[in-house]
Amino acid sequence: MAPSKITSKEQVHELLNNYDTFVFDCDGVIWLGDHKIPGAVESIELLKKLGKQVIFVTNNSTKSRQAYTKKFEKFGLNISKEEIFGSAYASATYLQEFLKLPKDEKVWVLGESGIQEELKELGYESIGGTDVRLNEKFDSNTTPFLPKDPKVGAVIAGLDPNINYHRLAITLQYLQDPNVKFLATNIDSTFPQKGLILPGAGSIIESVSYSSGRTPIACGKPSQNMLDAIVADKKLDRSRTIMIGDRLNTDIKFGNDGGLGTLLVLTGIETEENVLKTGAPKYYADGLGVIGELY
Amino acid sequence: MAPSKITSKEQVHELLNNYDTFVFDCDGVIWLGDHKIPGAVESIELLKKLGKQVIFVTNNSTKSRQAYTKKFEKFGLNISKEEIFGSAYASATYLQEFLKLPKDEKVWVLGESGIQEELKELGYESIGGTDVRLNEKFDSNTTPFLPKDPKVGAVIAGLDPNINYHRLAITLQYLQDPNVKFLATNIDSTFPQKGLILPGAGSIIESVSYSSGRTPIACGKPSQNMLDAIVADKKLDRSRTIMIGDRLNTDIKFGNDGGLGTLLVLTGIETEENVLKTGAPKYYADGLGVIGELY
Repeated sequence: MAPSKITSKEQVHELLNNYDTFVFDCDGVIWLGDHKIPGAVESIELLKKLGKQVIFVTNNSTKSRQAYTKKFEKFGLNISKEEIFGSAYASATYLQEFLKLPKDEKVWVLGESGIQEELKELGYESIGGTDVRLNEKFDSNTTPFLPKDPKVGAVIAGLDPNINYHRLAITLQYLQDPNVKFLATNIDSTFPQKGLILPGAGSIIESVSYSSGRTPIACGKPSQNMLDAIVADKKLDRSRTIMIGDRLNTDIKFGNDGGLGTLLVLTGIETEENVLKTGAPKYYADGLGVIGELY
Repeated sequence: MAPSKITSKEQVHELLNNYDTFVFDCDGVIWLGDHKIPGAVESIELLKKLGKQVIFVTNNSTKSRQAYTKKFEKFGLNISKEEIFGSAYASATYLQEFLKLPKDEKVWVLGESGIQEELKELGYESIGGTDVRLNEKFDSNTTPFLPKDPKVGAVIAGLDPNINYHRLAITLQYLQDPNVKFLATNIDSTFPQKGLILPGAGSIIESVSYSSGRTPIACGKPSQNMLDAIVADKKLDRSRTIMIGDRLNTDIKFGNDGGLGTLLVLTGIETEENVLKTGAPKYYADGLGVIGELY
């Protein structure tokens, strides 16, 4: 069925009748870098006023959900921690819900504080991560991280601006044990920042993946592990949930594969031509703003 | 033809009659970590006395050939820079001989001083590498390495104990230009050190390979690019050259694929059973020492 473009009040009401939960990608939908997308905030506020559940999904693992609420505040949106689903939280949740890691086992973290904070919230002790002793040059004789901690049952790896040989070497020691579970917050190869394309989480993880010969369980978009973690955590009815995003090959694929409704907004990287050619989303619109404007 | 085990004076003389150039892998052949392998030094000295050309091949790119001569000294072997062929030198030679990089273009180095020194010897200017300013935390606004140097025509990447996000980010900026050539000193995923398995050059390179979506030209063993660089540099006759090593899947494959004679020594990781099962090398021996002992 061809994607339906939302251009009328009737279509907005159909959307609101069909779905109880609205899952949002953020960049390209609500903001573009540091710039607000017109009408997006108003549409989200309307949805909340109408009693809809809103969930914001991000692959950014460097910040915890709590820290990420501040980004929404900057755009004038009052969003609670519980309404945000980051890849760090998704990884921690996946570890608990699907891999059933016992709470007396520890997690070695290659990545930022976001991962450590989310693990702590779920009751897991983490080691590694932002520990400043890992900033020292690696020396196998003096590192305080060897011998390995036998209580470590999993490794979670994500984007790490403090990546160094010490972190790579110790992470590899844990991954050499096939009983230690291996999760990646997400496997994005790059991300854009201030006009540059910079190495993403996937580029850090690929290094330890290559040295260990292991492939991690990827938790971020577009992996269904992310959606499974959301559905389990929020107890969602997939048939009453819609994914809203600006990318066909990640957001819309993510929603379609997971059996959700899908709405593509043209405020990000896709063109109307592409949307019609692929026929991928159920709905599409010029921007998220149309919901508030046409209601 | 089944591999011939060298156990007699006649076989040693056959070997000496058949070959003028002896190319050696080092670890497992001459030394094992910090330990000398019995008789190996004496055999090498005999070969040199008989006027044979000896070449020592190593994938270690952190040291230049000059610096590597000191390792031989430790074992009582007086080996000159010209008799050593490291992966850093192989990469620099490959850049000059096969990729024909003009001498007024620069090379961005992700790796250690070995690469920079070998480039300098060939008359190339390098940037990056061990520059201490790269040890600072990456900030796109303050890094002295942006904007990119338009004179950079190639990237050489290798093992880098100082790997950090700053180095990965700037390397990626250069690799985004498809006109910039991309070479890897070697792609070993790990290497053994003091009872640990540590991340090798390939694990560093894999990170920038993944972020850039590019595959480097690999110069170390077992890549034939290494052998091509040696043959070009030393003007060797392949039919009169023999490769001596302790590993079937790297050293012996390297020699066989390149049309050299091959001699496997059992002082490294292979068993006689394996050698006979695969039938891969032309000759094999209990150790390099047999040449001196049986001569």
